Amino acid sequence: MNTAIRIYKSIGALSKIDAQNSEITKLFIELHRHCQNILTASTKISLISKIPGKQYFVFHNGTKNSRAVNEDLFINDVQLVENTLAHLINNQLNSTTPDDITKALYTMAISFCAVIDLGKSGDQKTPGTFFEYFSSHWFAKTLRVHPQTSIQVLNLDRDTSLPTDYIYDLGDNRPKIHLPVKTSTRERVIQVWAHQRVLDGVYGTGRFLGMLVCLSETKTDQKKLEVTDICLPEQWRAYQLFIAQMYRIYYLDAPTKYLALNNVFPPINVRPLGEYFYEVNSLFDNVSNYS
Amino acid sequence: MNTAIRIYKSIGALSKIDAQNSEITKLFIELHRHCQNILTASTKISLISKIPGKQYFVFHNGTKNSRAVNEDLFINDVQLVENTLAHLINNQLNSTTPDDITKALYTMAISFCAVIDLGKSGDQKTPGTFFEYFSSHWFAKTLRVHPQTSIQVLNLDRDTSLPTDYIYDLGDNRPKIHLPVKTSTRERVIQVWAHQRVLDGVYGTGRFLGMLVCLSETKTDQKKLEVTDICLPEQWRAYQLFIAQMYRIYYLDAPTKYLALNNVFPPINVRPLGEYFYEVNSLFDNVSNYS
Repeated sequence: MNTAIRIYKSIGALSKIDAQNSEITKLFIELHRHCQNILTASTKISLISKIPGKQYFVFHNGTKNSRAVNEDLFINDVQLVENTLAHLINNQLNSTTPDDITKALYTMAISFCAVIDLGKSGDQKTPGTFFEYFSSHWFAKTLRVHPQTSIQVLNLDRDTSLPTDYIYDLGDNRPKIHLPVKTSTRERVIQVWAHQRVLDGVYGTGRFLGMLVCLSETKTDQKKLEVTDICLPEQWRAYQLFIAQMYRIYYLDAPTKYLALNNVFPPINVRPLGEYFYEVNSLFDNVSNYS
Repeated sequence: MNTAIRIYKSIGALSKIDAQNSEITKLFIELHRHCQNILTASTKISLISKIPGKQYFVFHNGTKNSRAVNEDLFINDVQLVENTLAHLINNQLNSTTPDDITKALYTMAISFCAVIDLGKSGDQKTPGTFFEYFSSHWFAKTLRVHPQTSIQVLNLDRDTSLPTDYIYDLGDNRPKIHLPVKTSTRERVIQVWAHQRVLDGVYGTGRFLGMLVCLSETKTDQKKLEVTDICLPEQWRAYQLFIAQMYRIYYLDAPTKYLALNNVFPPINVRPLGEYFYEVNSLFDNVSNYS
């Protein structure tokens, strides 16, 4: 547990300076090994799933339960996760699949969150910040850009700096990526569209592509040992229609109700995160009309 | 404490059915008396104030401290509060002042919040919900309308109902009031502008007047016994410029940095809540251009 926090803090320190640093990848791998060791020593308790077609369990260490873990996505095999990760790092995407990448990244992310859940009670901040480091690292590596976390807003009389989610500046004549990262969204998700709206207003629509990265939307009742997911697809549609347009929404554990938004008109593009690595090179080719 | 919760729940039950009911006013008065009794039995501890020109204290009951209470605004005299309230209820605004109304309402609101603070630890939900009942009651009484908390959104193929903050429908050819209520805003305030943006988009700009009601923005360090306020006026300006226009922002304990937004261009209209009762009749006369 203390080792996990120590590695997490090292990642945080490096991420702020150079989010694409390969040392960060190594630290994530080391952290994952350590977390899997802790989790292997815990017991698994199956949850009653209220989510059609998905099974979940929690880790239990005698006193505490972790958050819900998706049975299909969690890989209880460090070597398998690292093999997939090696393909990802070495850009051997033909040797793996979007599904396998999603599972590997899900396993790494949820393992750390679960370890924190089993430790100090009610600490939501550390998993949230960890997931920001984790997500921004993969985007920094693939985009080869260190993200910034504030932008200049022109107020005519005096400029002001507005704190933002991660912004990746891909250079002249290319879009900038607005990357909010959330372990879960719930009712706070409207902030994501609102920040996109501010960016559209300040710099002009189409200059920033909004790409939200989420871990999952599960909610666990630890007394009843039940898991459900909280999804508000109709509200998302209203935000997408009336506030701003998000270009992609990536999930590690994508809720079925949000994936269904790909099939409404106008669609919202919701994808498992693994697909990002396969579409990243074509993603910014033709963005004058949001394809 | 149990009595306070019992009255609070009665207010909640009535508010949902008929928010302008005079029984609710009576219950708020009864609740205030009860809370002042509890607070009179507590000790006051002065805080070190980092807020220029404002002094604060906390109530202490031997084990817990309350949130910060503004010394100038808190009236340690039930009769004085009730006298002001009588003028307000009987529409004798010439017999009182905006300042006195702000102080009376501040005292009633912060008393209940302080009593909850001294009880069960970390309960933020009850003060927040209380303040929603409290604020929506005064608006319902003055506007003579029961608020709704969802609106229809037209999606062409199928309509959908979107949950909202309080909405007061003043009838044909008159604006509707969009009334979000927050005990404090912090980084969540962008939601307020985003909801206004959705309403503008769904029904057209100018149909809904956004009026935010807040209690205060103090943040107390209970170890150092220090109080400060968290204000983000430049971010508010960006939201007002780029997301939507809020018509009024009312505070019971208005932060100086937000009151200063009245004097920038374009201004954001931030007022002590007591002023609402004096401007309500002229507020909706000429709203084609936001005056």
